[in-house]
Amino acid sequence: CEKLVCGSRLSAAKLLKANGLSPVVLEARDRVGGRTFTVRNKETKWVDLGGAYIGPTQNRILRLAKEYGIQTYKVNEQESLVHYVNGKSYPFRGSFPPMWNPIVLLDFNNLWRTMDEMGREIPREAPWRAPHAEEWDNMTMMELFEKICWTSTVRRFAKLFVNVNVTSEPHEVSALWFLWYVKQCGGTMRIFSTTNGGQERKFAGGSSQISECMARELGERVKLQSPVCRIDQSGDTVAVETLDKLTYTYVIVATPPALNLKMHFNPELPPLRNQLINRVPMGSVIKCMVYYKENFWRKKGYCGSMVIEEEGAPIGLTLDDTKPDGTVPCIMGFILARKCRKIWIGIRIVKIKTISNRIHVSTCVCQPVHYEEKNWCEEEYSGGCYTAYFPPGILTQFGKVLREPVGKLYFAGTETATEWSGYMEGAVQAGERAAREVLCAMNKIHQSQIWQTEPESMEVPARPFATSFWERNLPSVGGLFKLVGISTVLSVATAAGVVAYKKGLLSRS
Amino acid sequence: CEKLVCGSRLSAAKLLKANGLSPVVLEARDRVGGRTFTVRNKETKWVDLGGAYIGPTQNRILRLAKEYGIQTYKVNEQESLVHYVNGKSYPFRGSFPPMWNPIVLLDFNNLWRTMDEMGREIPREAPWRAPHAEEWDNMTMMELFEKICWTSTVRRFAKLFVNVNVTSEPHEVSALWFLWYVKQCGGTMRIFSTTNGGQERKFAGGSSQISECMARELGERVKLQSPVCRIDQSGDTVAVETLDKLTYTYVIVATPPALNLKMHFNPELPPLRNQLINRVPMGSVIKCMVYYKENFWRKKGYCGSMVIEEEGAPIGLTLDDTKPDGTVPCIMGFILARKCRKIWIGIRIVKIKTISNRIHVSTCVCQPVHYEEKNWCEEEYSGGCYTAYFPPGILTQFGKVLREPVGKLYFAGTETATEWSGYMEGAVQAGERAAREVLCAMNKIHQSQIWQTEPESMEVPARPFATSFWERNLPSVGGLFKLVGISTVLSVATAAGVVAYKKGLLSRS
Repeated sequence: CEKLVCGSRLSAAKLLKANGLSPVVLEARDRVGGRTFTVRNKETKWVDLGGAYIGPTQNRILRLAKEYGIQTYKVNEQESLVHYVNGKSYPFRGSFPPMWNPIVLLDFNNLWRTMDEMGREIPREAPWRAPHAEEWDNMTMMELFEKICWTSTVRRFAKLFVNVNVTSEPHEVSALWFLWYVKQCGGTMRIFSTTNGGQERKFAGGSSQISECMARELGERVKLQSPVCRIDQSGDTVAVETLDKLTYTYVIVATPPALNLKMHFNPELPPLRNQLINRVPMGSVIKCMVYYKENFWRKKGYCGSMVIEEEGAPIGLTLDDTKPDGTVPCIMGFILARKCRKIWIGIRIVKIKTISNRIHVSTCVCQPVHYEEKNWCEEEYSGGCYTAYFPPGILTQFGKVLREPVGKLYFAGTETATEWSGYMEGAVQAGERAAREVLCAMNKIHQSQIWQTEPESMEVPARPFATSFWERNLPSVGGLFKLVGISTVLSVATAAGVVAYKKGLLSRS
Repeated sequence: CEKLVCGSRLSAAKLLKANGLSPVVLEARDRVGGRTFTVRNKETKWVDLGGAYIGPTQNRILRLAKEYGIQTYKVNEQESLVHYVNGKSYPFRGSFPPMWNPIVLLDFNNLWRTMDEMGREIPREAPWRAPHAEEWDNMTMMELFEKICWTSTVRRFAKLFVNVNVTSEPHEVSALWFLWYVKQCGGTMRIFSTTNGGQERKFAGGSSQISECMARELGERVKLQSPVCRIDQSGDTVAVETLDKLTYTYVIVATPPALNLKMHFNPELPPLRNQLINRVPMGSVIKCMVYYKENFWRKKGYCGSMVIEEEGAPIGLTLDDTKPDGTVPCIMGFILARKCRKIWIGIRIVKIKTISNRIHVSTCVCQPVHYEEKNWCEEEYSGGCYTAYFPPGILTQFGKVLREPVGKLYFAGTETATEWSGYMEGAVQAGERAAREVLCAMNKIHQSQIWQTEPESMEVPARPFATSFWERNLPSVGGLFKLVGISTVLSVATAAGVVAYKKGLLSRS
C-alpha cells in the first residue's frame, strides 16, 4: 500500500542516454526523486517520508536497485500483526485479519474473490475495454461494496482497504478504476500483503537512492529547480520555458497527469487531454514516523503492523520501520484520505501516541523519542500521494488518451503504467516505455519494441498466492440463503429492501 | 441552462476603480470575456458562442447591462416547444414536457418536488453544512435518481436535466453539489425555464459587450495575452509573473478553481486548496449554431426550443437564436457531456441537420446556409464549460476553502458565487464580493459590507413559479402503493428488489 513514486523522468533519461541520445531532465523541485523522499538526520539515520515499499513482481525497480548495488531488506513481520476494531486489539498472522462469525467469514471471503474475478475481466493496458467497463465506471466503489457486501463488518473493512491502497474514499473512486488498480498490482492479496506482497521490502539507506544514483549518472543533464511553465510546439523544435527558455527535439512529460496543468501549451492540448488532466485528482496521505528508545512491540510478540478500524484514530495502517540491524526503533503510520482533512494538527502526535499505547502496552515504557512526518497534500509539484485516482465516469471516457502522444510530447509518470501503476515500479515501466516511444519516433527501434516485459528478479522472486478449496468454493451470504432453500427472488428482494431501507432517502419516494 | 461566464475579473476591477484604487486585470487570452465569446461576421451579424442567456433574479448582470445601455430581448417561445423522445416529436407548452401515463406523471411530479425540497435544506452559502451534507455528497446524482425515480421515462429525462444544466453526467456529479447548484439558481423551474427562467433573454449585440464595456472603462489597466505563470507572496508585495514580472499589493484570482493550477505559487497553497483545485473538473459542451434562409419553424407553429432524448443525437437542447428583429434565422444547440467525447466531427453538421429536419419538416426547404460552433473542451484557459462540477465526496471535504483567501490572494470566478454560480450573474457577484474583501483588508469598508444583496431589476422582474394543489399533494409512485393498501414494507422491499435485480451485479453476491 506504499507507492509514492520516483524516477519516471530519470529512468526515461537513463534509457535514452544508454541509446546514445542527449536527454535533459527538468526537475521542478530542488531535489530529485519526486514522490520518494529520503531524509537523513541524526535521530533517524535515514527515513523514507515518501514512497518506500517494494515487493515481488516489481522487477524493474529491483533491476535498477541491483545495478546500483542498493540492498533490500524485509519489513519485519515475524511476530503477530494486530487488527484493532471496536476498541479492541486482535493479534493475527497472514495478509488479512481472520473473521470468526461464519456469516461475516463468507461475506469476507466472497468480497476478495469477487474483486479478483472482476479484475480478471479488465485488460491491464486498456481497462476501458472491459466487457462491463461502462457499468462499472459509472458507479463508485461504495456502490459496488453495497452490492457485494452483506455485513457492515466487511463493508467497513472494505473501506479501509480502499483508503490504504489509493489514499481516497470508496465513494470518491470509480469501481472500474479501483478494480483495475488492484488487478494491475496482481490482485487483492499481492497489493495488501507485506510478506510476498507490495510491502515486503524496503531499500537499505532509503528509496531516493535510486533516483540519486540515476541523477549522478546523468550529471549535468539534470537541472533542479526548473519547473516548466510553458511548452511551445508551434515551431520545428519544442520550446520549453523554465527559468531559461530552451529548445528540444522531443519532450517526455513525466508528471502526474494533473500537473500537466502547471504548464501553458502552444498549441493547446487536444480537447480530451485538456479535460482529462482536470479529472484525475491525487490521493491524500500524511506519512508519520514515531521513534522509540526500544523496540518494545517485538518483545511483546507484535511485529508492528496494525490495521486500525476506528473513526477517531488518525492512523489507518502501521508497519515496523526499524532499521534492518535493529537500530532506530520506529513505527510508520499512514493518515489516509478523509482523515487528512481533519484538524489533527498539534494533537496529531498525542493521538498517535495514544493509539500506539492503547494497542501495545498499557503502562508506558514507550514514550516516543522522535517524530517525523510528511503531508503530501501540501506538495504543489505532486498534488498529493500516492497516486491519481479516477472519479466515476472518467476512465472509460478519457482513459485512452492517458499516454497518447501529442505532437512531440510523450507521457510518462507512474499513472501511465500498466503494471504496479501508482508505485515506483510503475514509474520505471512508464519512463522506459516513453523513452522507447521517442526512440521509435527517431526510427531507432521498431514499434513492436516499445512495450517490453521484464525478467523476474532473482533476489525477490514472487510466490503464487494459494487459495484453499474452501476459499474458492464457499458460498457468498446470498448464495448460502439460496442453498438453505429460501426462494431466490424473495431473499434478494428482502435483502435489497433492507439495504435500501437503511439509506434514509428511500422513505422519500 | 446557459451560463458560460464572463466578467468576474472585470467586475472586481470596476468596483475597485470606483473606490479609488488602481486595479490591473491580467487576461490570459487575446480578448476579454472568458467564457462569454461574441463573434461578429457577415453571416451571423453577431453570435454568442459562449455564455449568452440571462433571466429574472440575475439582477447584478442586468444592472451592468443597464449601465452600459445594452438591451435585452426575449428568446422566442411564442409557439410550441418540442419534446423528441422514442423517435417521435411531441409539441408542448410550459417549462417541462407533460407526461400522459399517470404513473409516469406521479413520478415526474415527485422528482421535481423532491429535488426542490432537498434543495431547501441546503444553505446557499455553505452547502457543506446541510443536515444531510455527507450522505448526499457521498452519492452521485445517478444514485439519487435510482432512489427517487420509479420509472425509466423519468430517470431518462432526469439524466438530460443534469446534462443540460451542468454539462456533465449524473454518475459523475455529487448529489449534494447538483442539488445545491439547482437551488442557488432558484430551483428546478427557474433553472430550466426559458420564460421566467435562466434562458428568458439574451443581450442584443452579444454578451461579450458587457466585458468589452468594462474593459474600455478600465483602459490601459487591462493587459491581454498575459497568462499568469507564477505568484510569489514571499516578500512584502505579491510578485506576479506573466510576460513581465510585476508586483501588486493584493491579487484577486478570478479563474475557474482548476485553472489556479496554471500558476506556480510561492509559498505553496495550503493543503486543502492545493488538493481542491485538482478535484473540480469543468463540464463538457460544444455550442452549435445552424443558420437557415427562413425561420420555417415558427411558420409551422414551433418556437425552436427542443428537448431531445435520443442517444444517437448529438444535440440535447435547442433554442431559437434568430435576431430580435427576425433576421438571421438560426437554431442554437448544445452537445453535452458524454456526447462531446464521441467523434461527431465531420458528421456533426450532417447529424444536426438530420435531427432538425426530422423534427420540423420532412421535405426540405430548410437547408442550413451557415454553421458556427465552439468546442469549449479545447480551451486551455477555461478547461471546459459552463462551469466546474463537484464529483462525489469533494464538496463537504474541500468546499469551505473555495473562496477562503490565502495571504493577499482573494478568489473570485463564478464557481465561488452563492447565487447563479455557473452563470454570468454569479461571475459578477463573485468579482464584486472579492473586490470588497480587498477593500475590507485595506480598512476601507467594514467586514459586514462584503456580502451585499442586489435590488431587483425593474426591466426583468421575477415572477414566482406557482405550483398547483395537485403538484404539491399528488403522491409519489411509492406513496400511491401505500395509499392503495399494499403493506409498506413489502412494497418497498419488492420495488427495491426489482431495481437491484436490474443491476447485473447483484447476481454476483
